[in-house]
Amino acid sequence: MVWVDPLDPFAVANVVGLLAFAIAGALKGADADLDLFGVVVLGVLTALGGGMLRDVLVGRVPVALTTTSDVTVVLVGLAFAVFLTRRLDRRLRDHPAFLLSDAVGLSAFAATGALVGAGAGVSPFGVVVLATLTGVGGGSLADLLLTRVPAVLREDFYATPAAVGGVAFVLARVAGLGAPVPSVACFGAALGLRVLALRYDWHLPSV
Amino acid sequence: MVWVDPLDPFAVANVVGLLAFAIAGALKGADADLDLFGVVVLGVLTALGGGMLRDVLVGRVPVALTTTSDVTVVLVGLAFAVFLTRRLDRRLRDHPAFLLSDAVGLSAFAATGALVGAGAGVSPFGVVVLATLTGVGGGSLADLLLTRVPAVLREDFYATPAAVGGVAFVLARVAGLGAPVPSVACFGAALGLRVLALRYDWHLPSV
Amino acid sequence: MVWVDPLDPFAVANVVGLLAFAIAGALKGADADLDLFGVVVLGVLTALGGGMLRDVLVGRVPVALTTTSDVTVVLVGLAFAVFLTRRLDRRLRDHPAFLLSDAVGLSAFAATGALVGAGAGVSPFGVVVLATLTGVGGGSLADLLLTRVPAVLREDFYATPAAVGGVAFVLARVAGLGAPVPSVACFGAALGLRVLALRYDWHLPSV
Repeated sequence: MVWVDPLDPFAVANVVGLLAFAIAGALKGADADLDLFGVVVLGVLTALGGGMLRDVLVGRVPVALTTTSDVTVVLVGLAFAVFLTRRLDRRLRDHPAFLLSDAVGLSAFAATGALVGAGAGVSPFGVVVLATLTGVGGGSLADLLLTRVPAVLREDFYATPAAVGGVAFVLARVAGLGAPVPSVACFGAALGLRVLALRYDWHLPSV
Repeated sequence: MVWVDPLDPFAVANVVGLLAFAIAGALKGADADLDLFGVVVLGVLTALGGGMLRDVLVGRVPVALTTTSDVTVVLVGLAFAVFLTRRLDRRLRDHPAFLLSDAVGLSAFAATGALVGAGAGVSPFGVVVLATLTGVGGGSLADLLLTRVPAVLREDFYATPAAVGGVAFVLARVAGLGAPVPSVACFGAALGLRVLALRYDWHLPSV
Repeated sequence: MVWVDPLDPFAVANVVGLLAFAIAGALKGADADLDLFGVVVLGVLTALGGGMLRDVLVGRVPVALTTTSDVTVVLVGLAFAVFLTRRLDRRLRDHPAFLLSDAVGLSAFAATGALVGAGAGVSPFGVVVLATLTGVGGGSLADLLLTRVPAVLREDFYATPAAVGGVAFVLARVAGLGAPVPSVACFGAALGLRVLALRYDWHLPSV
């Protein structure tokens, strides 16, 4: 029953990310006055949607539909979020601890996207796309359900760290470095860049 | 040429659902002032989109693209809907017979989603997701094309019956009941709950 | 390194289409005030999104993620578009040369959609759906990201040529004509119809 190995840094990062993403999605749904079903859908989709896009694109049945461990984590996050929206204020999303958890999730998801892509034999471009999409796809799908332009296209230095993580993965592979160096490089580059962007309020230029 | 066996209740329920969903989608498109192509797309997508999402998620080519029987039914529904929008008034959608046909379709689609998911070896969570998505996915995709928040996230006790049908399917399987009991349980639970929700105007709480 | 055979008319048409679609998507993103990442996403999605939908529906890993030639063309188009938005005016989109390039791309993409569908064994309806979706899917996904109703559902005689190209492909196959006649018929029918629609300002009736 110990399905998260506490000594595996990626497993821990993945759980942190699933919790942060599920909570963020559920709060987003509650703010949009969805009913309980809608709040659950937004939370589940934000947490698991990026990985589902990744799996559909490489032609395998989404792991979110075949395993139960990730889903259990997401449901715990959702229950917490629903409790939060009733009892506590909603400014949690600006709290540094929440932003850091979200950044950890983004980076862990980017690393799984790059790994799955490389395993499926995609091109370097494909690795970068899958790293980015796994990181930001869930939140973007949730935005689309609410008919909002995905925040990552407009607002923030958020997708770029995931893409740069994908590039770091490719470079580490080109340099001949064996596992787990490429995934660690991806995770580290994405997390470092995201934390710096938050700390110094970086933005991409508009064209 | 007899591709619908009138003694197979699911085949009949599926045809009823395809007709109801195609008509509902086409009327939705006509109300949104789409051109003829757009009206056809909305009708086809509403009727076949849920099953296409289901098939893509389990990694098979959508049956809507490989068989012709379902498409024929949908096109008949579309022709009827286009005729309707020109000649008759549009309040059809609130007519009890239409609402019941729609509920039959929702329940039949939920049952196929659960069956296909179980056949692909997904988890219990996956069965519930696929039952729900097959039932409400087509209408939600149509809403998204019109840049509307899918109605199922906000308005109605509509997705919940499909999800409960998925749960009934899982429970029947866990109880060791053989086919066709799980699908019948799914269909029956979804239809009963949907009809009760319509009859007594049930709504989910918002969070 | 010569990955486009200049004697292969489809390869040339495909490159023309990728360039036109990438530029159109990037300009659309710039007009919507996206940041640089968003502009790149819109351009890449407009050019490669239709083919990705096509590949996901027939159950293969999108060629856009496994090969590099198409992506290289798209990136050249994007660099040109970003340069354009800074230096030149944006009325390029109404220039006859641009509209013709776009029509060439639409028709080439419809032909690849029909070919891939036929190769995957889909029904005649599936061939028409895949031809249409490959032609208009990328632009429609870009519209959805910007929360706009896809233009093809409302505004223009744009999707119809792709669908008619799919029908021409099916008819040529039914008539027993061997490759490359069906794809040439698809390309020719789509291009002819699109150019006529532009020249004479054709529109579909609304229902």
